[in-house]
Amino acid sequence: MGKNRSAPTLNDVAREAGVSTATVSRCLNSPDRVIETTRQRVMQAVESLGYTPNFAARVMAANRSYTIGAIIPTMDNAIFARGLQEFQDQLRQRGYTLLVSSSAYDPEMEREQIRTLVARGADGLLLIGHARDASIYTFLEQHQVPSLVAWSYTPEAQQPSVGFSNIEAMGELAQLVIGAGHRRIAMISGQTSGNDRAQGRVEGVKRAMAQSGLDAATLTLIETDYEIEKGADAFAQLMTLSPRPTVVMCGNDVLAAGALSEARRLGIKVPEQVSVTGFDDIELAEIVSPGLTTVHVPHREMGREAARELTAMVEGKSAGQSVCIKTRLMARHSLAEPPCQ
Amino acid sequence: MGKNRSAPTLNDVAREAGVSTATVSRCLNSPDRVIETTRQRVMQAVESLGYTPNFAARVMAANRSYTIGAIIPTMDNAIFARGLQEFQDQLRQRGYTLLVSSSAYDPEMEREQIRTLVARGADGLLLIGHARDASIYTFLEQHQVPSLVAWSYTPEAQQPSVGFSNIEAMGELAQLVIGAGHRRIAMISGQTSGNDRAQGRVEGVKRAMAQSGLDAATLTLIETDYEIEKGADAFAQLMTLSPRPTVVMCGNDVLAAGALSEARRLGIKVPEQVSVTGFDDIELAEIVSPGLTTVHVPHREMGREAARELTAMVEGKSAGQSVCIKTRLMARHSLAEPPCQ
Repeated sequence: MGKNRSAPTLNDVAREAGVSTATVSRCLNSPDRVIETTRQRVMQAVESLGYTPNFAARVMAANRSYTIGAIIPTMDNAIFARGLQEFQDQLRQRGYTLLVSSSAYDPEMEREQIRTLVARGADGLLLIGHARDASIYTFLEQHQVPSLVAWSYTPEAQQPSVGFSNIEAMGELAQLVIGAGHRRIAMISGQTSGNDRAQGRVEGVKRAMAQSGLDAATLTLIETDYEIEKGADAFAQLMTLSPRPTVVMCGNDVLAAGALSEARRLGIKVPEQVSVTGFDDIELAEIVSPGLTTVHVPHREMGREAARELTAMVEGKSAGQSVCIKTRLMARHSLAEPPCQ
Repeated sequence: MGKNRSAPTLNDVAREAGVSTATVSRCLNSPDRVIETTRQRVMQAVESLGYTPNFAARVMAANRSYTIGAIIPTMDNAIFARGLQEFQDQLRQRGYTLLVSSSAYDPEMEREQIRTLVARGADGLLLIGHARDASIYTFLEQHQVPSLVAWSYTPEAQQPSVGFSNIEAMGELAQLVIGAGHRRIAMISGQTSGNDRAQGRVEGVKRAMAQSGLDAATLTLIETDYEIEKGADAFAQLMTLSPRPTVVMCGNDVLAAGALSEARRLGIKVPEQVSVTGFDDIELAEIVSPGLTTVHVPHREMGREAARELTAMVEGKSAGQSVCIKTRLMARHSLAEPPCQ
């Protein structure tokens, strides 16, 4: 016997149970209209074949797999976990299963995974950020697979997005930092190449500086991977500068956690000697000591809205509508006035 | 035009380019044997259809999708992220794409996701732990989809596993705790129902107590979800006991991080007044203050071995061989002697 990888059909169940497909349908839809022994035989066949009546019936009816794919840059550090969990819960309530793929911030890998998910019959895709080759969108169009961008809100882009403006969110935090009196500002950013969220956050800091009459060119910027140790390394490097920056704004909470742990190692007091800020407000932000002043991203709300919009697109009820999610500042203890000079 | 969800075939490319399939093959395999204008036309068709020659050729040759599914209990808190990332990297080197699904520790959801992944053509599945309904294994056998269990090592189980003995790993840590002089031991465990890893860790503590002449029935045990706030709540509850436990052993680092942050909130000094231990040695364990004494699980090694073994099973080179991964104790500062009475 060859491999039978496709889901079992109504026909398979009928054959296995030795009844007509109409009888199988009756057993599933109006079991009281079928005599008990027949019903038992059919349900045995249903069970042994692993036939999922609703699933298969809906797929037949709608030519859908009721599978949604999401391609995220990383599974590490829970950056995407919370939003994705809510996205999945909401999808499930609508009868969809989520399959996730992680691209390790590698565009070539993302392209492969998009192809795999389309080849595996995904009804729609959630993608993170806008920065990718246009040919990918052409490919998705050809296969009539709707896609929605999350973690970014760019209403002027062709692709619909559910998220927030990284420029404005980080800009607001930078205003707070500057308002506290900081002038020597350093930033540890994620790699900006191919990452519109990271680019937006750097841009947000620069714009806030310019708006406050500071020279944005004086921003000391280090780009590195979103990893705790990388945040620690970058922080150590910044602390060798003379004069030292009085604040280190980090591209996300993971980098900021690394910065805090390196500060502890170096015996540098946060925020007394140097302030540190994050972005995302993942659980880590509350656990580290001192607690991180950061940008709170309502990940659950974003996941919920993304599920609502993407299923509407898949079901032909929406052509793709962008949704703006509001972030807010979360003040804890890692930001204070700069030390007296 | 109806939806065309399956990957484009050699035939589709030939039709699009207006050439024979043999010409398409030649273009792909020996391009110098095809005249330039034809080659350009074919490569244009390849690109516009999103045809992936190697992928499709291999699928045709081997009746494989080169897709592996993994169903993990949660994407939160990076418990599985690191091992999974290495699993994916190793799969990719072997030409496979990984699709991940998260069951939220819900057996019914896991069952749905297994069916979805099989229906979507997964060549093999990675599952976490052994505890699941036998009918799932029957289903996988019927569909000839090999599966491998990870995060657990149970050579006596029918299902091959790549992992470690949760009993022994936690038992070793409990020996260290008891060796430091602790007698009033409390444990914050994950939910043990349907979770053989959580069960094993509790069992490990109890066995170590018995081996040291302590009454295992004196273990104060709280079961809760693997979430930081749940660890905090459970810790607060334990601190109301009189006499207080002198050590709180946690089922994983996430719970322990919650315990530490609650201790800080309550003004209870760790480890001076109460010791806290974790399990997993995820990055969190090093970042929290004091650093967690925990069990180091070599997640990358486990991911690597799991990828090697599962692809061997998929390719018919192995019938499924269990692999034992060695954990080790990681001593930091959260465990000390109990306070003087």
